[in-house]
Amino acid sequence: MTDRFRNMLETFDNPYPKRDYTVEIVCPEFTSVCPKTGQPDFGTLTITYAPEAVCVELKSLKLYLQQFRNEGIYYENVTNRIADDLTAVLRPRRLTLTASFTPRGGISTTVTVRYPES
Amino acid sequence: MTDRFRNMLETFDNPYPKRDYTVEIVCPEFTSVCPKTGQPDFGTLTITYAPEAVCVELKSLKLYLQQFRNEGIYYENVTNRIADDLTAVLRPRRLTLTASFTPRGGISTTVTVRYPES
Amino acid sequence: MTDRFRNMLETFDNPYPKRDYTVEIVCPEFTSVCPKTGQPDFGTLTITYAPEAVCVELKSLKLYLQQFRNEGIYYENVTNRIADDLTAVLRPRRLTLTASFTPRGGISTTVTVRYPES
Amino acid sequence: MTDRFRNMLETFDNPYPKRDYTVEIVCPEFTSVCPKTGQPDFGTLTITYAPEAVCVELKSLKLYLQQFRNEGIYYENVTNRIADDLTAVLRPRRLTLTASFTPRGGISTTVTVRYPES
Amino acid sequence: MTDRFRNMLETFDNPYPKRDYTVEIVCPEFTSVCPKTGQPDFGTLTITYAPEAVCVELKSLKLYLQQFRNEGIYYENVTNRIADDLTAVLRPRRLTLTASFTPRGGISTTVTVRYPES
Amino acid sequence: MTDRFRNMLETFDNPYPKRDYTVEIVCPEFTSVCPKTGQPDFGTLTITYAPEAVCVELKSLKLYLQQFRNEGIYYENVTNRIADDLTAVLRPRRLTLTASFTPRGGISTTVTVRYPES
Amino acid sequence: MTDRFRNMLETFDNPYPKRDYTVEIVCPEFTSVCPKTGQPDFGTLTITYAPEAVCVELKSLKLYLQQFRNEGIYYENVTNRIADDLTAVLRPRRLTLTASFTPRGGISTTVTVRYPES
Amino acid sequence: MTDRFRNMLETFDNPYPKRDYTVEIVCPEFTSVCPKTGQPDFGTLTITYAPEAVCVELKSLKLYLQQFRNEGIYYENVTNRIADDLTAVLRPRRLTLTASFTPRGGISTTVTVRYPES
Amino acid sequence: MTDRFRNMLETFDNPYPKRDYTVEIVCPEFTSVCPKTGQPDFGTLTITYAPEAVCVELKSLKLYLQQFRNEGIYYENVTNRIADDLTAVLRPRRLTLTASFTPRGGISTTVTVRYPES
Amino acid sequence: MTDRFRNMLETFDNPYPKRDYTVEIVCPEFTSVCPKTGQPDFGTLTITYAPEAVCVELKSLKLYLQQFRNEGIYYENVTNRIADDLTAVLRPRRLTLTASFTPRGGISTTVTVRYPES
Repeated sequence: MTDRFRNMLETFDNPYPKRDYTVEIVCPEFTSVCPKTGQPDFGTLTITYAPEAVCVELKSLKLYLQQFRNEGIYYENVTNRIADDLTAVLRPRRLTLTASFTPRGGISTTVTVRYPES
Repeated sequence: MTDRFRNMLETFDNPYPKRDYTVEIVCPEFTSVCPKTGQPDFGTLTITYAPEAVCVELKSLKLYLQQFRNEGIYYENVTNRIADDLTAVLRPRRLTLTASFTPRGGISTTVTVRYPES
Repeated sequence: MTDRFRNMLETFDNPYPKRDYTVEIVCPEFTSVCPKTGQPDFGTLTITYAPEAVCVELKSLKLYLQQFRNEGIYYENVTNRIADDLTAVLRPRRLTLTASFTPRGGISTTVTVRYPES
Repeated sequence: MTDRFRNMLETFDNPYPKRDYTVEIVCPEFTSVCPKTGQPDFGTLTITYAPEAVCVELKSLKLYLQQFRNEGIYYENVTNRIADDLTAVLRPRRLTLTASFTPRGGISTTVTVRYPES
Repeated sequence: MTDRFRNMLETFDNPYPKRDYTVEIVCPEFTSVCPKTGQPDFGTLTITYAPEAVCVELKSLKLYLQQFRNEGIYYENVTNRIADDLTAVLRPRRLTLTASFTPRGGISTTVTVRYPES
Repeated sequence: MTDRFRNMLETFDNPYPKRDYTVEIVCPEFTSVCPKTGQPDFGTLTITYAPEAVCVELKSLKLYLQQFRNEGIYYENVTNRIADDLTAVLRPRRLTLTASFTPRGGISTTVTVRYPES
Repeated sequence: MTDRFRNMLETFDNPYPKRDYTVEIVCPEFTSVCPKTGQPDFGTLTITYAPEAVCVELKSLKLYLQQFRNEGIYYENVTNRIADDLTAVLRPRRLTLTASFTPRGGISTTVTVRYPES
Repeated sequence: MTDRFRNMLETFDNPYPKRDYTVEIVCPEFTSVCPKTGQPDFGTLTITYAPEAVCVELKSLKLYLQQFRNEGIYYENVTNRIADDLTAVLRPRRLTLTASFTPRGGISTTVTVRYPES
Repeated sequence: MTDRFRNMLETFDNPYPKRDYTVEIVCPEFTSVCPKTGQPDFGTLTITYAPEAVCVELKSLKLYLQQFRNEGIYYENVTNRIADDLTAVLRPRRLTLTASFTPRGGISTTVTVRYPES
Repeated sequence: MTDRFRNMLETFDNPYPKRDYTVEIVCPEFTSVCPKTGQPDFGTLTITYAPEAVCVELKSLKLYLQQFRNEGIYYENVTNRIADDLTAVLRPRRLTLTASFTPRGGISTTVTVRYPES
């Protein structure tokens, strides 16, 4: 069930599939909802990956991330779930996802997931 | 005795316990009291850890840190003590605690503790 | 009752009482307590005044502001109260007090009081 | 109809109603939806007002602003509408609302409304 | 002839035509061509206006500005021309256009046009 | 066909061919066109290389990059293509090309290519 | 004699001579020589003017400013002299010249000249 | 007695005595001693003046300010005293002196003196 | 003789002597005198050390550093000397001292000493 | 011939010759002339070295660098030449020279030379 938004992610053929290079995508407008309080959370996602056969299509990525707008989900959970979705669809050489959330109660949180785990 | 605030720290089950990932928590509103002068100290705590079985619950962390508000304790001592409490409760794969205190007499201090020691 | 900390403020003779000049004092370590939630608030106070007969003594100002550390009081109230205390003790030509509080629920607040009102 | 969220705004008695002073509130987590494209918009609202009989209660302001989360509305419209709601409920001496929206198509927009108009 | 791109600018009805308020639009991706050297120029346009009957539609503004991409025109000329086009189409209460161009030969230039002239 | 602009790149003899040193070139005025939407893209290219027999002549590099001004090409493709052209002409000891593009739909992208792949 | 570089300044016809608008030119690469010590001075010149009949041509301005490269002249003198030259050649509606010099002996200096004097 | 360092200040003839222009001098390396605690104070002095017949010679200004290095004197006193010395020696059209001191006890202070008083 | 200020440095028992952790101390108000010109030098000292049996007491460190206020000594010499004093008194696991001096003649200098040498 | 300015560089005995430590010198006021266009180039030189028997005397370094003020020389050439001169005179344990030049034609360049080559 955690992968129900996954099929929104579209890809296109990597134009240089033989080369090991890096794409970094920064999404400062991520928002979801805290499952405990019902209050919205706001954060910046940074995706860094080395494409293998395919690259992620940016408009589909934007629409995929918008699905979380009214989704109740914890920081640690949403970050791992998006990393799982991206890794499953892109099958990248490697991928890092960093999610930095704005302060709540004077405390701000950043979650980082790496694939493969180093 | 150094662990008398420790039981305020609550945890929740790590949703991805098999993955080695990182959570960074920044608390810029830490304050305690200098045991020598009785004057308040102010600092920013940065906690970076890789959860094992559990994650720290943020609201309990906030309340735990507020216990030091009127506690007389030196920089080096409070930083090590909080690191001990977090490590005992979270049993993390690894944890770093950095405490940056605002200037006193034109001198500012930062204490950093790592677990396990590298 | 609102002036019970006021007598902690000490002054010294203005060395140039005939000249209209300005003193700005910035106190980034102000903290009080929210009377509704019991949670601590944090802010930066900026005092700008033109002394008449006396100047405020800085150490007494620091100790005066520390009295609010465990005081339950709203933003609008504490700012006006401190402005009242400073104006009563210093009898300045003019004074502006700006209090900027750190974010709560993603919202940050700044209160500004001027004497005399322009 | 433009005022259907208005009754969510709560107030409390201005503790210093006779003094002309200023409150600035910054809300960097505002989000609504573009009525043309259905895409989310993101912006920072800055409210500056001089209270008369009442002050705005911050938690109610947060919840009021969250009502726009899934509302389809243009920049110029939402800024004027919020200014209208705040002015109607607070009846302030004066109020300025500035809404700065993040870039779309390489273009960023800021709308500013003042009450009374100068 | 200077107004041949002007008809690309579209407008929509000002939702609050009776109120004197301000819209600021920043376009950091402006580019045209130096008529003397044939080299591309790059700059940031900032449009600040108070709408009367209509507001400028942002997508049409973007497309209008893109017309200058391969146009050979001097700094002073292009800034005045765009100000003329915007003023003719919007008939605003007032408008300021600031064009900041990136350095050439170690010298950077900013041109500012105001309507009406103050 | 991807190398049709390549012959615009000129070189001059490396004055210190026996030394392994580094040249970094930053080009903040790169612009091309999105092949899908026809909209212009804007970015900053950073070229870091260790010259072998020759160095790149800066004016020819500027003119070469200007060829992409009206070229419809994706981020991943243009970055790899420019890296290929530079590597073919310069035959450097090593080269890194980083292309950072401005936000589209609230998302910004950076592509990095290294030669030889590490 | 103070105007011996003046005839290097070239102008072109103001394309909008009837409008009162502003041109700001920043030259961060100004250098001259201290007449007392023989050491080079470095500064940033900012020229802001409202053109009347003519505008200054930027390349000629650059070459004019380069004449001071080996000229021994004090800060106050060179700033006033350049302001005189620009005012004599441009006959502007108004002009401000600000020259900010880098620190010497831990002291930095900025000289500002306005025409006409306000 | 307050003027015993004054005669160290040297001047030179204003090269443009008929013009009303401005010189700003920033001295970030000012240090004196607190007369109460004997601890050193550190600050940045900013002098802005419009010269009449003479300008201040910068090296003499540096040496004059160094006299305060081991002088026990309060913030408000030293700022007014330096302003008096500069005004007496330069007889300027107008002068502003701003002295910003680094934090002590978490509190920083800036004193500003203007001549003539506005 | 180089160690004549050394006995001013006081220590206290390291509260966690078995743990390898780090303390960073920043002192932006260091000043000494150039032995060649007699002019004051200004710099920022950054001390980073891992305590063994003892920690440095901050007030004694402040007083120790103030001893150099009127001491004529070169950059390279004073940095190594302070590093020697700290290492002799603290007997730390490791220590780094970085001294950054403000510009002289447009040139700024930073000296870094590590113990043990890596 | 490339070493004709070299003998201007003076040294003094390293006060701690047995210790491996580092000196960083930043010179933001470097200027030379482009041999192709005759236009002045501006840059910042950063020298980082570990002294062996001698240290570089800063005033002689300043005068040495001023020799390039009217010298026509390319970026790659001047950086390697200064690195050669410094290495020949200082015989350091290691040295890095980084030269960052300001933009020309929208392109900025940085050249880095290391000794010994790693």
